[in-house]
Amino acid sequence: MKAPSSLDELIAALRCLPGVGPKSAQRMAYHLLQRDPSGAARLAAALTQALTRVRHCESCNNYCEEAVCGLCKSPRRDPSLLCVVEGPGDLLMMEQAQCYQGLYFVLMGALSPLDGIGPREIHLDRLIPRATDGVVREVILATNFTVEGEATAHYVGEALRARGLKVTRIARGLPVGGEIEHVDSGTLAQAVLERREA
Amino acid sequence: MKAPSSLDELIAALRCLPGVGPKSAQRMAYHLLQRDPSGAARLAAALTQALTRVRHCESCNNYCEEAVCGLCKSPRRDPSLLCVVEGPGDLLMMEQAQCYQGLYFVLMGALSPLDGIGPREIHLDRLIPRATDGVVREVILATNFTVEGEATAHYVGEALRARGLKVTRIARGLPVGGEIEHVDSGTLAQAVLERREA
Repeated sequence: MKAPSSLDELIAALRCLPGVGPKSAQRMAYHLLQRDPSGAARLAAALTQALTRVRHCESCNNYCEEAVCGLCKSPRRDPSLLCVVEGPGDLLMMEQAQCYQGLYFVLMGALSPLDGIGPREIHLDRLIPRATDGVVREVILATNFTVEGEATAHYVGEALRARGLKVTRIARGLPVGGEIEHVDSGTLAQAVLERREA
Repeated sequence: MKAPSSLDELIAALRCLPGVGPKSAQRMAYHLLQRDPSGAARLAAALTQALTRVRHCESCNNYCEEAVCGLCKSPRRDPSLLCVVEGPGDLLMMEQAQCYQGLYFVLMGALSPLDGIGPREIHLDRLIPRATDGVVREVILATNFTVEGEATAHYVGEALRARGLKVTRIARGLPVGGEIEHVDSGTLAQAVLERREA
């Protein structure tokens, strides 16, 4: 027996969420209707509001609701340092680590030609003028150590070095508290290769 | 650095979905804003529409958009059989199995006193008049073989039997294609206990 069409449409619409397949979407729809209609109404309103209000910071490209975000406007940040990250979640992790006082640029992705994500999609056309504003002295590449993240770091690094900027990459190695016996061999090999004077 | 408040609210609202924790909610919000704003708009509209339009069938209690659903109105179903299931997903599975031509009653849950789900929450006050309409001759209990499902079947069965109805329970046993060597011992024990003449 067919489900009512509004329910079918809700199940289909829930599948736009990453990692949600047909079974999960069905379970979510039933849950919302049966157990949490006020949560569903809140979600509908939050989606609409976020779509209307959230935009990209003109300076760092992160999500914000003004032209320039609070972090970029803060006088307590060092404007001579620019850290390039793949996504907003990476920026949050950097801030939680409390190890960095400079500014950011959020690429909103990583190079992945097979998925149609090229230099334009990671906003290289905005990163280059941002990094060559005359104030930035060092660009720190903090993209992931995945194939896409490494390719992105290489590509972005080349483009910025060609313009005379100092470009660095965050270190790879054993995690803090990491034991040699239990680390994967790739990480261990890199840690040996990139060893430094003790 | 704080995320914009509309984004925070979207992340919080996404957590009303079952199985979605803080990390997934964050990933979903970023995905929707960055990669699928049209999907987000569609989801917002689908939620609102489902909340407005979807209601419960007056006869079987399943979700529908009219007073009585298409299945209950169908002249091709046998009104002397009433199958009691826990949720709409169970009804769909029964229909897919093409083994049943009677009508249904959807409890929208199973008894679970610890979670505050008692006889009222599974709509026993509607099931009893439905089952004792004079047309229904047999009620088939097709709740899950879980603790909650078994308790529900027992409770509902007692209530209906007390009103003079014939009540049956779907069979437990080895699955079709099941191998004795690989089945769990509880199922095997039940299959032996509930053996029938060959």
